[in-house]
Amino acid sequence: MPLTPSWIQSANAPDTDFPLNNLPYGVFSVGQGDLRCGVAIGELIIDATGLEAAGILRADQNADVLDVPFWNEFMALGPAAWSAYRAALTAMLAQTASEDVKAQIKTHSVAMADAKLHMPFRVSEFTDFYASRHHATNVGTMFRGAENALPPNWLHIPIGYNGRASSVVVDGTDVIRPHGQLKGPDHDLPSFLPSRRFDFELEMGTIVGVASEGPISLDQAMANIFGYVILNDWSARDIQAWEYQPLGPFQAKATATTISPWIVTSEALEPFRVDTPERAVDLLDHLKDTSPMLYDIDLEVGIAPEDKDETVITRTNFREMYYSSAQQLTHHTSSGCPMRVGDLLGSGTISGPSKESRGALLELSWGGKEPLTLDTGETRSFIEDGDTITMRGAAKGDGYQIGFGTCAGKVLPARD
Amino acid sequence: MPLTPSWIQSANAPDTDFPLNNLPYGVFSVGQGDLRCGVAIGELIIDATGLEAAGILRADQNADVLDVPFWNEFMALGPAAWSAYRAALTAMLAQTASEDVKAQIKTHSVAMADAKLHMPFRVSEFTDFYASRHHATNVGTMFRGAENALPPNWLHIPIGYNGRASSVVVDGTDVIRPHGQLKGPDHDLPSFLPSRRFDFELEMGTIVGVASEGPISLDQAMANIFGYVILNDWSARDIQAWEYQPLGPFQAKATATTISPWIVTSEALEPFRVDTPERAVDLLDHLKDTSPMLYDIDLEVGIAPEDKDETVITRTNFREMYYSSAQQLTHHTSSGCPMRVGDLLGSGTISGPSKESRGALLELSWGGKEPLTLDTGETRSFIEDGDTITMRGAAKGDGYQIGFGTCAGKVLPARD
Repeated sequence: MPLTPSWIQSANAPDTDFPLNNLPYGVFSVGQGDLRCGVAIGELIIDATGLEAAGILRADQNADVLDVPFWNEFMALGPAAWSAYRAALTAMLAQTASEDVKAQIKTHSVAMADAKLHMPFRVSEFTDFYASRHHATNVGTMFRGAENALPPNWLHIPIGYNGRASSVVVDGTDVIRPHGQLKGPDHDLPSFLPSRRFDFELEMGTIVGVASEGPISLDQAMANIFGYVILNDWSARDIQAWEYQPLGPFQAKATATTISPWIVTSEALEPFRVDTPERAVDLLDHLKDTSPMLYDIDLEVGIAPEDKDETVITRTNFREMYYSSAQQLTHHTSSGCPMRVGDLLGSGTISGPSKESRGALLELSWGGKEPLTLDTGETRSFIEDGDTITMRGAAKGDGYQIGFGTCAGKVLPARD
Repeated sequence: MPLTPSWIQSANAPDTDFPLNNLPYGVFSVGQGDLRCGVAIGELIIDATGLEAAGILRADQNADVLDVPFWNEFMALGPAAWSAYRAALTAMLAQTASEDVKAQIKTHSVAMADAKLHMPFRVSEFTDFYASRHHATNVGTMFRGAENALPPNWLHIPIGYNGRASSVVVDGTDVIRPHGQLKGPDHDLPSFLPSRRFDFELEMGTIVGVASEGPISLDQAMANIFGYVILNDWSARDIQAWEYQPLGPFQAKATATTISPWIVTSEALEPFRVDTPERAVDLLDHLKDTSPMLYDIDLEVGIAPEDKDETVITRTNFREMYYSSAQQLTHHTSSGCPMRVGDLLGSGTISGPSKESRGALLELSWGGKEPLTLDTGETRSFIEDGDTITMRGAAKGDGYQIGFGTCAGKVLPARD
């Protein structure tokens, strides 16, 4: 699928994250102004709240859904409304648009460089999965040895656990190094100290746009997904090691989870669907792929020490997942668990097969035993105070890319 | 502390759950009417939404907070407003109230028998703990043997995991037996089947009424708790057994969690505060008790097969917990996890020291090996289709009790 040209020239640059084929949804403000819903195109943000209020482009003829600083009410309109809105907006931004329409859009747009971005939606609940086989194998090998790397259930269940929605923050939010109970193997008793093994996890976040009550099929799950963001599941490895038996990670994952600011819709990613990897064992019927449900999205992570240049330390791809987001969502509903508009599912750390494609420092430094050397000459086993972690991603089309913006956060020293 | 007499005679009966000392908050409707906030007293519900709209009793002079079918906006006013509202309501319902006030109250009240009860608050997020030593020891003994019953962290951390807020339902809601991946020890592969080991867990639910951003002290945690409900954490033991390694329970706990319909406030329970049990090992400073933070609340569970009489199968007390709700909330915030108004914390199953005081069928039937015999002559290892599980609880004062209403649910057959 080629680039769809826009009359907004910056949207036609091959390296922009936001061509007309993308049209991701975010929330922005300018100066001391209020928070508004916006759509990214090239170097502009279209003021979707303004277009709705002016009656120029409405998702719902009878009610305002963009007069709030989040896209949840829009999502709740359902897939037919999502498509219609996207089609109308595409027509207004395509080269064929009339001069009248261009003038309207110009009145309701701002330069992205002048805007501050905020959380694009209200996170109802957050679930995090563990669904890259490379990641699970690496972590399992470190903790349980190569022969017991994958738990017995792993090839049958897209394993997940509930996370904490209140700790989800947007790109650019500082993260304070957490305290927690730590107990080293040489100590009899735990201590309450700042985490020494604070890490990132490179993930994609999947946003549920349709509520459901009972179990849903894979095809229904695919239809219920509104869009995707890049997600950093900050993780305190030492807190987790002491707390996680028998009920799983809790405070180790509750400090923060950062997401990129633009919701890239399922519709924009449609041309980039790919199959999950070959199955090692047959999945149960309700989890068997019915079509390509993964996506070909290049991903990378950079680390920049305070006031220093960034080193890209990993490059991988979303298609490395063993389970798709649809498989995760179907499993999530299997017990009858109700899902809500705005639920966020973290894919789990996305590691590729090579050492250079591992999605967390835990794997990249092999539990701290093989520190990375950055371009600055410094080494890293885990994140140091002042480090900024930046994630980026894009699906690569023919002369264009569908990008997500950045998913970045700087780690500040622990509280006194 | 003695009974505070009310001019509403049914509130002075020694066996009512709702004397003037209680004044719990709920949400009710009558017939096809709308959902309204209400306060239970004797056999009446005071229409708090109506009192606010009429300007008779307002929690906030400047804004309506009870014009919504949940108490979250009221909670968000904070502890000083909670106390002032309760004091004003107490004065209006006390025997010393004027005839004018009595007439106003009568205009804005309904017979509890005529009302339907709904969820009393919007659950922001739900966390479930594992904090009764008797329960953890029983379960650990069954799964890992007596010598390894308690995990190494258990005496140091009030262990918890995030649950699913979307599945929390109110007293009286039917629960459909869940499907899930099950794998018995004699099978090579899992199957997707209805749970055969579906269970209840007797817990108390703690409602956070004050939001927080960073770590908070035990005293602050105590002050931030708005009130309590009884909570049944429905659990599919066979789903859990297969799914829970290494990231904890997920679909096993996501079918439903039932709460009693009335929020009993911390203030009403103040006279019933008791100490946590003696510590087996010293807690870290931030978790050390600063005052009595548990509560003396009698609890019981009954099971009634379809169209048959109920048998009470366990009697225990909230004071059997090893960790208080305040200790759980402080731990919950230790990594910097933000807490929200409406967060719900399940205490974990409350088992006492004796066989008759165990808080789940898993323990009562010792994993199904020692089925219970009900008064009807039937036996139960786990819940059968058509069974209704009913939990009740009350703090016992001098000639009165602070009750919670019932926390009941009937289990329906699995979906086809």
